[in-house]
Amino acid sequence: MDGESPGGGITLEELQLAARNHGMPLEALRSPLTPPGLHYVLTHYDIPEVDPTTWRLRVEGHVRRPLELSLREVQALPRVTLAVTMECAGNGRALLAPRPLSQPWIHEAVGTAEWSGTPLSKLLDRAGLGSNAVEVSFEGLDRGVEAGISQHFERSLPVREAARPEVLLAYEMNGGPLPPQHGFPLRLVVPGWYGMASVKWLRRITVLAEPFGGHQQAVAYRLRATEEDEGTPLSRMSPRSLMVPPGIPEFPSRVRHLRSGRVRIDGRAWSGWARVVRVDVSPDGGRSWGKATLGHSPGEHAWIGWSFDWEATPGTYELCSRATDETGRTQPLDPEWNAGGYANNEVQRLRVIVSDDRA
Amino acid sequence: MDGESPGGGITLEELQLAARNHGMPLEALRSPLTPPGLHYVLTHYDIPEVDPTTWRLRVEGHVRRPLELSLREVQALPRVTLAVTMECAGNGRALLAPRPLSQPWIHEAVGTAEWSGTPLSKLLDRAGLGSNAVEVSFEGLDRGVEAGISQHFERSLPVREAARPEVLLAYEMNGGPLPPQHGFPLRLVVPGWYGMASVKWLRRITVLAEPFGGHQQAVAYRLRATEEDEGTPLSRMSPRSLMVPPGIPEFPSRVRHLRSGRVRIDGRAWSGWARVVRVDVSPDGGRSWGKATLGHSPGEHAWIGWSFDWEATPGTYELCSRATDETGRTQPLDPEWNAGGYANNEVQRLRVIVSDDRA
Repeated sequence: MDGESPGGGITLEELQLAARNHGMPLEALRSPLTPPGLHYVLTHYDIPEVDPTTWRLRVEGHVRRPLELSLREVQALPRVTLAVTMECAGNGRALLAPRPLSQPWIHEAVGTAEWSGTPLSKLLDRAGLGSNAVEVSFEGLDRGVEAGISQHFERSLPVREAARPEVLLAYEMNGGPLPPQHGFPLRLVVPGWYGMASVKWLRRITVLAEPFGGHQQAVAYRLRATEEDEGTPLSRMSPRSLMVPPGIPEFPSRVRHLRSGRVRIDGRAWSGWARVVRVDVSPDGGRSWGKATLGHSPGEHAWIGWSFDWEATPGTYELCSRATDETGRTQPLDPEWNAGGYANNEVQRLRVIVSDDRA
Repeated sequence: MDGESPGGGITLEELQLAARNHGMPLEALRSPLTPPGLHYVLTHYDIPEVDPTTWRLRVEGHVRRPLELSLREVQALPRVTLAVTMECAGNGRALLAPRPLSQPWIHEAVGTAEWSGTPLSKLLDRAGLGSNAVEVSFEGLDRGVEAGISQHFERSLPVREAARPEVLLAYEMNGGPLPPQHGFPLRLVVPGWYGMASVKWLRRITVLAEPFGGHQQAVAYRLRATEEDEGTPLSRMSPRSLMVPPGIPEFPSRVRHLRSGRVRIDGRAWSGWARVVRVDVSPDGGRSWGKATLGHSPGEHAWIGWSFDWEATPGTYELCSRATDETGRTQPLDPEWNAGGYANNEVQRLRVIVSDDRA
């Protein structure tokens, strides 16, 4: 663990991750579907090199009929396309102090894409779950050493979640083959859940008679008060709202400059628990709030657009926005610390300088 | 300026840049052409939103016939496709100490794409350069505040460089429209030069009778010994070689684990000054070197592949590779500091742990 103040003192190890992974530049929030190349990317290990002609997906474990499928065979199964907002469980980590050592996201580890593939449930039906099945695990081709253990990235879902009709085995993103960094040739997409559940570069699906105990499930991706705490596993995305940063940026600080007058602030908001029913906007760091107008969503598993008209007079402001979902879940003004640095959905704070003459 | 030791103590401002810009994950060096979404991206300001139906390119200043062209009109000009390796002038900045404050690249701010467009010289011929023309400046639609000045990103080329047949006005990248972050709908591509010359989101080309004195030319992108030094402008890329990191990575440190035995190390090397004629590889941090075998290049303005067979015995190693071009330019073992943190082409150092049992 490192970093006594939020976002300061990033180490070379963290920078190596920040340089190869990337967030979505926030101006891409203008688009309901994130343009190609701007969707966030997080890989634990290397992006595998896959020959799609020899690649096979195995389905095994507690099933009645183990399967081995080529990409063509997967593509011949019923096809579904869904717009899905996906967010990294570590989004917001770099704002925690002390800062848990991993990918140092600020706010931008998110994206929305149209994923095409076949419902996982169709494939599980074909394999036939054993009566003792409790979980389904998903193993990727990506391999590395983590916590001293050489491993493939692997995560599981309870059978009940795996059977949901919106859980896809996706082979296309925005109408083209998956880019290498998004899981070519086949990945899982679990709408509503943080991105770690949507295992990339799938090579094996195993039906289990007991809960999966691998590193990414038993150790990582748990909300833990201390390193020793057993914690609770992460699943669905907490509500979050982000603003398209208004005006023009200063380089390198990214502080925004705006001309005074009526300013339309646009943004998008999402929650993995329920639909977003309310977005509030504050020009003064959260002391006063106004209600935004909710707009369009590209799909029931995707973010919703919103807008807010603000009468900007010269001065310096801290703009915030806050989403609330139908369950009443909302965003805190201050971060809730946890040992892994997960699910920090504190409100975004955007520094804006309004003047009569500039921008 | 910040950071007393290489790569440590990255500030929140730098992290904000690192989270929105991104390098090429080094395993993408496997491909002669960088897969979509993995080419490095650096934007000073926001990615502009452009309506291609109303967008126009103006060509003006010291020309005989000022022009205004639609995207269709640009696309109707003679078409050329070139594979070009492009690198950010700030690549290597985060390895300098003290570290100049800007985008904190380590080694990965590079990529190779096939760009399609029309030679700039064809358009300049059509406009007709005035007899007093000395430079051509290129203004983008991207706008921000830098060094206290509200500005569009703008850079110039001497007339002689602008007339080179390989300098393109590109409207396609890898066979598709430019992605927004790569300059949609039209950008300059200046093969051999650092990326700052390849101005994105072009809106105006101005032929000048005197050198351009804007910020990105007169202040930024100059090699300066001190902040006060006038310095010399950056132009062509210094030689660099990068390795596809062998074995598997540790998360989060990115240290590599390899099984002992013969290991083939692959990489790519480039120089903007002349073709690369030699690549050397060291397993021991630069104390001893062996010569790599040069391979394929996707084009005369693109990197060249190389490989090296290494007999790896158990132990800890620091792998390095070093490119030398036909002019004799090569890579230093230690960085050469400059105030802007540009053009640090010190050799890449890759920590590798070789054992009999793992990876």
